[in-house]
Amino acid sequence: MAISTTANTAPPKKALARSPLAPSRFPTLGPVAGVRLAGRAMGLKKHKGVKDLMVAELAPGTTAAGVLTRSKCPSAPVDWCRAILPRGKARVLVVNSGNANAFTGNAGDLQVAQTAGEAANLFGCRAQDVYIASTGVIGQPRSPDYVASKLAGMKRFLSAKGWRNAAEAIMTTDTFPKAATRKVMIGKAEVTLSGFAKGSGMIAPDMATMLGFVFTDAKIPAPVLQRLVRNATDESFNAITVDSDTSTSDTLLMFATGQVKGQPRVSSASDKVLKDFKAALKDIFVDLAQQIVRDGEGAQKFVTINVAGAESKRAARVIGLAIANSPLVKTAIAGEDANWGRIVMAVGKAGEKADRDKLSVSVGGVAITRDGQLVPDYDETPVAAHMKGDEITIDVDLGIGRGRGTVWTCDLTDGYIAINADYRS
Amino acid sequence: MAISTTANTAPPKKALARSPLAPSRFPTLGPVAGVRLAGRAMGLKKHKGVKDLMVAELAPGTTAAGVLTRSKCPSAPVDWCRAILPRGKARVLVVNSGNANAFTGNAGDLQVAQTAGEAANLFGCRAQDVYIASTGVIGQPRSPDYVASKLAGMKRFLSAKGWRNAAEAIMTTDTFPKAATRKVMIGKAEVTLSGFAKGSGMIAPDMATMLGFVFTDAKIPAPVLQRLVRNATDESFNAITVDSDTSTSDTLLMFATGQVKGQPRVSSASDKVLKDFKAALKDIFVDLAQQIVRDGEGAQKFVTINVAGAESKRAARVIGLAIANSPLVKTAIAGEDANWGRIVMAVGKAGEKADRDKLSVSVGGVAITRDGQLVPDYDETPVAAHMKGDEITIDVDLGIGRGRGTVWTCDLTDGYIAINADYRS
Repeated sequence: MAISTTANTAPPKKALARSPLAPSRFPTLGPVAGVRLAGRAMGLKKHKGVKDLMVAELAPGTTAAGVLTRSKCPSAPVDWCRAILPRGKARVLVVNSGNANAFTGNAGDLQVAQTAGEAANLFGCRAQDVYIASTGVIGQPRSPDYVASKLAGMKRFLSAKGWRNAAEAIMTTDTFPKAATRKVMIGKAEVTLSGFAKGSGMIAPDMATMLGFVFTDAKIPAPVLQRLVRNATDESFNAITVDSDTSTSDTLLMFATGQVKGQPRVSSASDKVLKDFKAALKDIFVDLAQQIVRDGEGAQKFVTINVAGAESKRAARVIGLAIANSPLVKTAIAGEDANWGRIVMAVGKAGEKADRDKLSVSVGGVAITRDGQLVPDYDETPVAAHMKGDEITIDVDLGIGRGRGTVWTCDLTDGYIAINADYRS
Repeated sequence: MAISTTANTAPPKKALARSPLAPSRFPTLGPVAGVRLAGRAMGLKKHKGVKDLMVAELAPGTTAAGVLTRSKCPSAPVDWCRAILPRGKARVLVVNSGNANAFTGNAGDLQVAQTAGEAANLFGCRAQDVYIASTGVIGQPRSPDYVASKLAGMKRFLSAKGWRNAAEAIMTTDTFPKAATRKVMIGKAEVTLSGFAKGSGMIAPDMATMLGFVFTDAKIPAPVLQRLVRNATDESFNAITVDSDTSTSDTLLMFATGQVKGQPRVSSASDKVLKDFKAALKDIFVDLAQQIVRDGEGAQKFVTINVAGAESKRAARVIGLAIANSPLVKTAIAGEDANWGRIVMAVGKAGEKADRDKLSVSVGGVAITRDGQLVPDYDETPVAAHMKGDEITIDVDLGIGRGRGTVWTCDLTDGYIAINADYRS
């Protein structure tokens, strides 16, 4: 019996059309000193010739940081990464699609151990320097050498230019590969950040259901890197939602090879020399997170929800996510209906402090309600025009505090149902 | 601009077909001593001749209890009911469909006050004895006499037999009227419980988006009635979900007229004489709650989720609701796919204690996983047959404690999207 999660299904029965919200092209990712990658079709997915395995080799001295799913039933690779992350060192990253190695009991742990062991042999490092992620079918244990047996065949394809192949090899129901790159100064040294991600369903915070990997040639101690990654995640990957579901496999990893020349030493996350780096890090995270939303299953519209005037920053995000996760709000957007009544409903159900009579809602920059009532002489015309576009903006002001936050989501269409109901015909 | 909530829209553009999960017929509701009702078309809904106002007159001495939405943006009638409930007395219930009187600012409060005042005049009671509920369009203030002006015209239609008309008058997108009745002994006195409810979308706990009204001729002091209602709600209306959305207007009210003869005096909720009454009360609540799920927007399958072995009763319900609210689980059921991987995912995201390797999942009574792995020689055939039916049962055993609970939901189909996207053509 083929058991699969949405996000994790190897190619669906019907090939999905590229999302209408996809970026026009794949970005040009230059080399990151100390990173060599490959992405190949190794027969893990049913459909032959579809890329399903990626390996990245990282220079000695690379530090690692990451954020993992809060699911109480995590996959074996997530358990593995959680165990090795405190060491903060990385030499290899292995990611497969086709099988999630989730809910596979002892067999899953054995498979992870063998993968790490084989990678350690091949690349001359310790098993605990090998990071692993898997996405695909849930609950189907494989033999311990399922991935390990493919690693030797990957090694000669490693290249500083392997970015696009790598990004494609981790795709499941994704309709386009997702990548982003930034260059930024740390002192007088220019460093590069490049990364890629996957995910299109089962996307919700803590974490968004996704895999994301970002690499830099900067030299950042692991504890500092962990702090930077954690902070940037809150306002990026944890501020997106497609369908409120959280996967067993969510994994965001960041690797810093330290190969850049002339970078001043960094010893704390609050170091002023990191100011631009921190901004670029958040920026690349937001870019990748937004690309995931743009590939939301069935998505026709990209939605930005700005919440202001909440009791706190945390409350603002809770309220934003309540709006973003409301099926009624999402279907209204699909129907191009500026249904602010449903937005009010979602604010109400969020459970955070709100005062009906201080609440303001704008759509497309046009005030619809102010102080809890419809704006006098409200003219629907510009709002209706905005709703017909594919970039929708909702602004909510609670009017009671200074907390603000932004959340991104997509609409909920019959395309989502069609993809996920997987009707057996 | 027509702003509407799903559950609250006066007749949708296309008349909806009766849910395939609806009961075969409307139950026969006999009189409840001390209750006279009417349901009529009074022009509050756009479509003429559609019933939109119900009034119930309650005998002097009637006690009242209720549970109201936890939304932070409740409707004006919810605010009103919350204010008068501590008195515990009721003489009149007025419910309209067509306009929810939610997010209507001061105008909404004025309308409620005038409705209560006019009802008090007509029925010779205090305004604080008049309970009010409204469902329909959100955010459209009406004149203060919107409902009040219709009340005099209702009075002569009040009848002990008005149940079906009353149940129909509170419908919005409901495809069938929902009602239930029970007879039970308190000591040597036979008492009757009869009630009706509405709701089909925006259904989630705290409360389910719904209106529900239950009447009995038993004599129960208000504080005792409140306790009984609160307890029965947790395992009925708060254990159902259609789409995880919570409305601004959820209202469950119960009235006890005390008109039965020869009932022993009741002074506490733990009184042994109430044993059968409590069971009947929970039973009628569950019946009405299940009918709401059976009318879930677009629902094709009725789903029962039994959770056992959780850390606590509360944890069991949280886990059950996480499964029931998962769009991925709900779409899999729509697709007749016993996708237990998604059930595991939902257990994991619930945030309650779980151990991947102790988790068991059964569908249709057939064990699929045990102790965290696929059952050896698992045969899909009987499970696939079960999934083709319209009554689906999922059993989850966490294997870590003694907490158990049951949650009911429906599948998520393209019908839900079609109803709620309300595509403007």
